[in-house]
Amino acid sequence: MTLTNVRVDGDRLWRSLMEMAQIGALPNGGCGRLALSDEDKQARDLFVRWCREAGCEVTVDDMGNIFARRPGRDNSLPPIATGSHLDTQPHGGKFDGVYGVLAGLEVIRALNDAGAETRAPIEVINWTNEEGSRFAPAMVASGVFAGQFEHEFAWSREDAAGHSLGEELGRIGYRGGQRCGEHPLGALFEAHIEQGPILEGAGVPIGVVSGAQGQRWYDVTVRGQDCHAGTTPMPRRKDAYTASARMAIALRDIARVHAPQAVATIGQVEVIPNSRNTIPGEVRFSVDIRHPQPAPLAAMDDALRGGFAAIAAEEGTEVEIEGIWHKSPIRFDEGCVDAVARAAEALGYANQAIVSGAGHDACQVCAIAPAGMIFVPCADGVSHNEAESAEPDDLEKGCNVLLHAMTGLANG
Amino acid sequence: MTLTNVRVDGDRLWRSLMEMAQIGALPNGGCGRLALSDEDKQARDLFVRWCREAGCEVTVDDMGNIFARRPGRDNSLPPIATGSHLDTQPHGGKFDGVYGVLAGLEVIRALNDAGAETRAPIEVINWTNEEGSRFAPAMVASGVFAGQFEHEFAWSREDAAGHSLGEELGRIGYRGGQRCGEHPLGALFEAHIEQGPILEGAGVPIGVVSGAQGQRWYDVTVRGQDCHAGTTPMPRRKDAYTASARMAIALRDIARVHAPQAVATIGQVEVIPNSRNTIPGEVRFSVDIRHPQPAPLAAMDDALRGGFAAIAAEEGTEVEIEGIWHKSPIRFDEGCVDAVARAAEALGYANQAIVSGAGHDACQVCAIAPAGMIFVPCADGVSHNEAESAEPDDLEKGCNVLLHAMTGLANG
Repeated sequence: MTLTNVRVDGDRLWRSLMEMAQIGALPNGGCGRLALSDEDKQARDLFVRWCREAGCEVTVDDMGNIFARRPGRDNSLPPIATGSHLDTQPHGGKFDGVYGVLAGLEVIRALNDAGAETRAPIEVINWTNEEGSRFAPAMVASGVFAGQFEHEFAWSREDAAGHSLGEELGRIGYRGGQRCGEHPLGALFEAHIEQGPILEGAGVPIGVVSGAQGQRWYDVTVRGQDCHAGTTPMPRRKDAYTASARMAIALRDIARVHAPQAVATIGQVEVIPNSRNTIPGEVRFSVDIRHPQPAPLAAMDDALRGGFAAIAAEEGTEVEIEGIWHKSPIRFDEGCVDAVARAAEALGYANQAIVSGAGHDACQVCAIAPAGMIFVPCADGVSHNEAESAEPDDLEKGCNVLLHAMTGLANG
Repeated sequence: MTLTNVRVDGDRLWRSLMEMAQIGALPNGGCGRLALSDEDKQARDLFVRWCREAGCEVTVDDMGNIFARRPGRDNSLPPIATGSHLDTQPHGGKFDGVYGVLAGLEVIRALNDAGAETRAPIEVINWTNEEGSRFAPAMVASGVFAGQFEHEFAWSREDAAGHSLGEELGRIGYRGGQRCGEHPLGALFEAHIEQGPILEGAGVPIGVVSGAQGQRWYDVTVRGQDCHAGTTPMPRRKDAYTASARMAIALRDIARVHAPQAVATIGQVEVIPNSRNTIPGEVRFSVDIRHPQPAPLAAMDDALRGGFAAIAAEEGTEVEIEGIWHKSPIRFDEGCVDAVARAAEALGYANQAIVSGAGHDACQVCAIAPAGMIFVPCADGVSHNEAESAEPDDLEKGCNVLLHAMTGLANG
């Protein structure tokens, strides 16, 4: 049979999202479902129940990743999968991650309604601890799946109360038997809200995600000299804060040189001794730079190292720039990106290429399997916030694209 | 008799400073003697014992200010006084305040050694809680003395543990019977380390302090919008930190317009939410501006208000500028300033006019009595720090100037 006319049920998808949002609901419309908490267990239980009601076989691996499988005609083929995460930030929204999981469930429900078969099996996945809010780092279970982290490393991650990820997996009954990473995947798609303002600003419902930005993170320390704010003439100062302020301006200028795709952010700042009438002797701050291409990212790295050193010298201060983490730019699999673009075109939805500014489970899994993503707009680009909001119509369109991208590959 | 040839004993002064520094001594050479602590009580007890041994009558007022009196020939005249404070910062030095108290004691000892009489009585004063580290605000007891604060306000000041200043005065036995402010003063001198680098830089041992800078303190809040550091394009940002960084640069430019006497400092900065991958939605920072003359200080106030507002608008942010405290520039009494200058000249010491960048007890008392100050150099301008250091020879010279300035007025 042809699947051309199969569509998801946008109302059912919305109702499922709203029902899931009651688990860990917060007063301002958001959700608090930290990974492996009692709320996360409830959310997982509900998801598993829904998947079984939809006829899926559910397996859980030893990182707590959940795989719900709708068989295909040839079950020797690796499944065409989709997934995201049900855990949230402490004051998260109703859509970040959850949409990608429940859109996958809706694809299965819609295929069931249509009585449609696929050649390869279809799977929907819930990845454990994507957010990293309770157990750092983020995307740890998809990272183990993709061979980026060792199992023992992931299990040993502790929350602020000293409970380990492995312990908590056992406590909520989600430490499964399958070894994480041994689950075959033919391809992985992930539908997600954009978490940025680009699609909304363009009035376009579908973002065809070509890849993810490369990132570099730094810890910068500027050392000057604590001095009395009243008695130290301006030319005698070694003011670590004024030097840091100049670096902040220089950093933005560097991002502007590589416009429009470069971004650069100072998010954390600590001023020492932080006393009203003392010239700061030390300032520590974070730097986050991102670009979708390796060469401009490297040029930004060079420019900030040189620029900060020059400012520090002019200000009579010293600067130490420590690169603490980096991630190379990702380009998603061409076949998956094409499948998303073709699905959007076939459905007649306006769409545009977009680069993910954030990290996602698909950005881990793409190291070992073909992967792609679908973005839908969210209000004002706001995410990681109770105010996170998305339009039912956009969510439905994204889910239809997901269905047709998946079935396109599953029947290809 | 003429006092022309009377000199202080610099070694004795130094030994007294070093003995006092053992009370609350810290590992790196400094002192921790918070106001009205057990250490402050020990320091007061030692000071009172030394004063009585020097033949002084000691009285204590109801703010704990200690007055040690060496009678003159005409005890109906108000005393010519000197004083400073024995309390220190939590990690303070051996000289800030202490020098001014013990230099006064050395003046009395030197007059005793010389068998010298003065017409008016001579007094040395220890003011309570100059630092303001334990009980804010600073200079509170000299402020009550000068009618700047109410008694009840001062007594009700609480430390971090909830103990009040009044309670602690009673606990250490220094809540005296005399009502603070009812003690007559003919004039007040205060000898102090400069706490800045000017005298040391000029190689001049004596600063003839003409007055104190005016100060304005502000709390500034810049409001933008929290956004994801990876997904928000640069032109869409309302980055409260970048806006604040531009204000820091603008503030320094404003001080440079009013060089060389203007100073401007941002000492405290709080970035919200202070997360590595979130663009700061709010930044709060302090501003401290100072100038010895009212007109440039007012011009700086205007310039920062206008400049910050313009930057905030350009950055798509909002700024709120709250003036939380100000102090007009002070000019010390001409007679006292002249007495200091004449004493330095008569002693053959290099000297120069200087404006105090910091507040001192004399800056309060000058509201109700003629007052003046003598500065001596300190190493690298460092103060409020265990590393605070001063040369015995400079301290001796400052003390000789104090003796001759005081006796000049006491016999005038």
